[in-house]
Amino acid sequence: MEKKGRDEQKEAEDQVVNPWEVTAKDGGKIDYDKLIDKFGCQRLDEALIRRVERLTSRPPHVFLRRGVFFAHRDFIEILDAVERGEKFYLYTGRGPSSESLHLGHLVPFMFTKYLQDAFKVPLVIQLTDDEKCMWKNLSVEESRRLARENAKDIIACGFDITKTFIFSDFDYVGGAFYQNMVKVAKCVTFNKVVGIFGFTPEDHIGKISFPPVQAAPSFPSSFPHLFSGKDDLRCLIPCAIDQDPYFRMTRDVAPRIGFHKPALIESSFFPALQGETGKMSASDPTSAIYVTDSAKEIKNKVNKYAFSGGQDSIENHRKYGANLEVDIPIKYLGFFLEDDAELEHIRKEYAAGRMLTGEVKKHLIDVLTVVVERHRRARAAVTDEMVDAFMAIRPLPNMFD
Amino acid sequence: MEKKGRDEQKEAEDQVVNPWEVTAKDGGKIDYDKLIDKFGCQRLDEALIRRVERLTSRPPHVFLRRGVFFAHRDFIEILDAVERGEKFYLYTGRGPSSESLHLGHLVPFMFTKYLQDAFKVPLVIQLTDDEKCMWKNLSVEESRRLARENAKDIIACGFDITKTFIFSDFDYVGGAFYQNMVKVAKCVTFNKVVGIFGFTPEDHIGKISFPPVQAAPSFPSSFPHLFSGKDDLRCLIPCAIDQDPYFRMTRDVAPRIGFHKPALIESSFFPALQGETGKMSASDPTSAIYVTDSAKEIKNKVNKYAFSGGQDSIENHRKYGANLEVDIPIKYLGFFLEDDAELEHIRKEYAAGRMLTGEVKKHLIDVLTVVVERHRRARAAVTDEMVDAFMAIRPLPNMFD
Repeated sequence: MEKKGRDEQKEAEDQVVNPWEVTAKDGGKIDYDKLIDKFGCQRLDEALIRRVERLTSRPPHVFLRRGVFFAHRDFIEILDAVERGEKFYLYTGRGPSSESLHLGHLVPFMFTKYLQDAFKVPLVIQLTDDEKCMWKNLSVEESRRLARENAKDIIACGFDITKTFIFSDFDYVGGAFYQNMVKVAKCVTFNKVVGIFGFTPEDHIGKISFPPVQAAPSFPSSFPHLFSGKDDLRCLIPCAIDQDPYFRMTRDVAPRIGFHKPALIESSFFPALQGETGKMSASDPTSAIYVTDSAKEIKNKVNKYAFSGGQDSIENHRKYGANLEVDIPIKYLGFFLEDDAELEHIRKEYAAGRMLTGEVKKHLIDVLTVVVERHRRARAAVTDEMVDAFMAIRPLPNMFD
Repeated sequence: MEKKGRDEQKEAEDQVVNPWEVTAKDGGKIDYDKLIDKFGCQRLDEALIRRVERLTSRPPHVFLRRGVFFAHRDFIEILDAVERGEKFYLYTGRGPSSESLHLGHLVPFMFTKYLQDAFKVPLVIQLTDDEKCMWKNLSVEESRRLARENAKDIIACGFDITKTFIFSDFDYVGGAFYQNMVKVAKCVTFNKVVGIFGFTPEDHIGKISFPPVQAAPSFPSSFPHLFSGKDDLRCLIPCAIDQDPYFRMTRDVAPRIGFHKPALIESSFFPALQGETGKMSASDPTSAIYVTDSAKEIKNKVNKYAFSGGQDSIENHRKYGANLEVDIPIKYLGFFLEDDAELEHIRKEYAAGRMLTGEVKKHLIDVLTVVVERHRRARAAVTDEMVDAFMAIRPLPNMFD
């Protein structure tokens, strides 16, 4: 039945996925197969994951082997370059809209850290404080403050300061970066951004001006202090798939202005506690586990809000088992329980009805408490001086070692 | 008859004056009275000119007393501020589209230098290399090169380096300047810029993004190295009236983002040699005297192309006199012959038919040759080091002295 429901949904054309809205049809699940078709990206298949494993001489990240990062564009060209002994650089980012991040916000950064470590490559992280100032109507000052606060959470993910440059648009846009923004903007008409992003003539020109800001970091010449004389360096962008429109535009423009198209590796959305119907909402604190939640809050939220695929009575549960397809604790364990054997054991026992929802939630609470506690400790150790150091405009002499 | 022709033209609604097009109806003259009404600016009247004379203790500039600068917005507020013992700053600019400037290009800079000297105030000069890169489809590199070349001509006008900061957008946009761009952009919809500038949905988003770039220098906080802690400093913009749309937009936005509206003092257009039907065309070298023209070229151009209001025969000329309203040598002398008595004498003799076109042209050739020769010598003395010095991002500790 579940299968049939998904096939039916595939027929509809009205799931909306763009940087500002993620909505499935009728409150259902996002259809990622359909998204791949619609966006024109490629599925990240098993052969590719094995190739990453071989090239990096380490097990593929949980997010890779469990399909969290499930789609790509030209990732094969990045691996081809690596095989030829060439380097690349990573680019990811965050729109600093809220003071404290939830677990979904950490997903791209945890994965990006793995990529940085595994491929030993430099990384630029863009904090789009200008975007949030415009879309959330925050003041410039508040947006910049949030950018620095978010930078602390990002640094807490363990990035290597000798290979990582974090910048906020309000501080960094200018010079070569601005020149690349103009080069991009010259190639994109208003009609084009209407088609890609759904802007309207009533939108302010700040929004209409923004896509080139997110495009520019895809080009090494936007960072002369890092990549001077390395205009041919390829760029790989790990991000959630809702950011794909920016980079479809970027990839369309790149060859016309003499640059490589950036490659992408794209994730699905981390589900809300209430169920897998899109992204979590920063405005509903019960929809997500925050990195600032206490152990008690985590326990309460999981027990109270995490949507269960278990049956409505113990008798029925023992008889029919849990529906793992809709069970949020199982989904969350898929992200954060690293031990494959243990996860498989829980899934099997739960599906068979031998394990109850309460026990699975207990597992999840333990796992999340460790993740959040580890993050909190790491973040507490991040000083303002460290933020300054990561955000300093400086060369990174050992970034390719 | 001339008078009637102008009245008729007033009825029409189709003269076009914007930053990219200046076209009068049916090849006639621009109707500046109508422009003042349409744009909603004020006429710069005799009382105001007398007030400038009194406040600066020096004769008003030729361009003021002869009505070249003929319109303003809130110039009275600037003079009120001066009377209270307050300072202001000047902002002007240039789109560096061509290698060598013609005399019309010098007009705003000559006048701005007078204002700087007379009021003893700092000046920022914006070189919109980004605009020209976008509108003329020049490369970033070529636009930046032209900006530096044009900077030499601007410096040759005699600006005081202790009070003058010259910047190019491609080099300077960023930080506080970019933050002000975003503040402006948030207040202006696409529909609004369509109304002001005539953009269409087929225009690229670089054009649509540009108006905030020209707005930002109107606010002192865009220049923290100059005006830190002086957010209340007023700005006066001397410019040709075709730039008014940018500053109508800027003035509309300013109070909404907590800034003073910039004041404006606006000039008519320097006429082409062939007649007063708009601005000169950079693409037609016979339409203008260039600052690089030799004495021989000046002589040839004036004699061959300068439209004459004299009669078609000496007999008729002696009988009817010259029509000064259409005579280009007389117009040009009005810009560049500083001696009021001499100009009046020429006008009188020429209008009465006692002086012939050839004699007036001879006067003009003498005057222009001196102006151009003086500029050429001044420009030849401008070194790359001087350009670097004017464009260095630096405080100007004595800018208000």
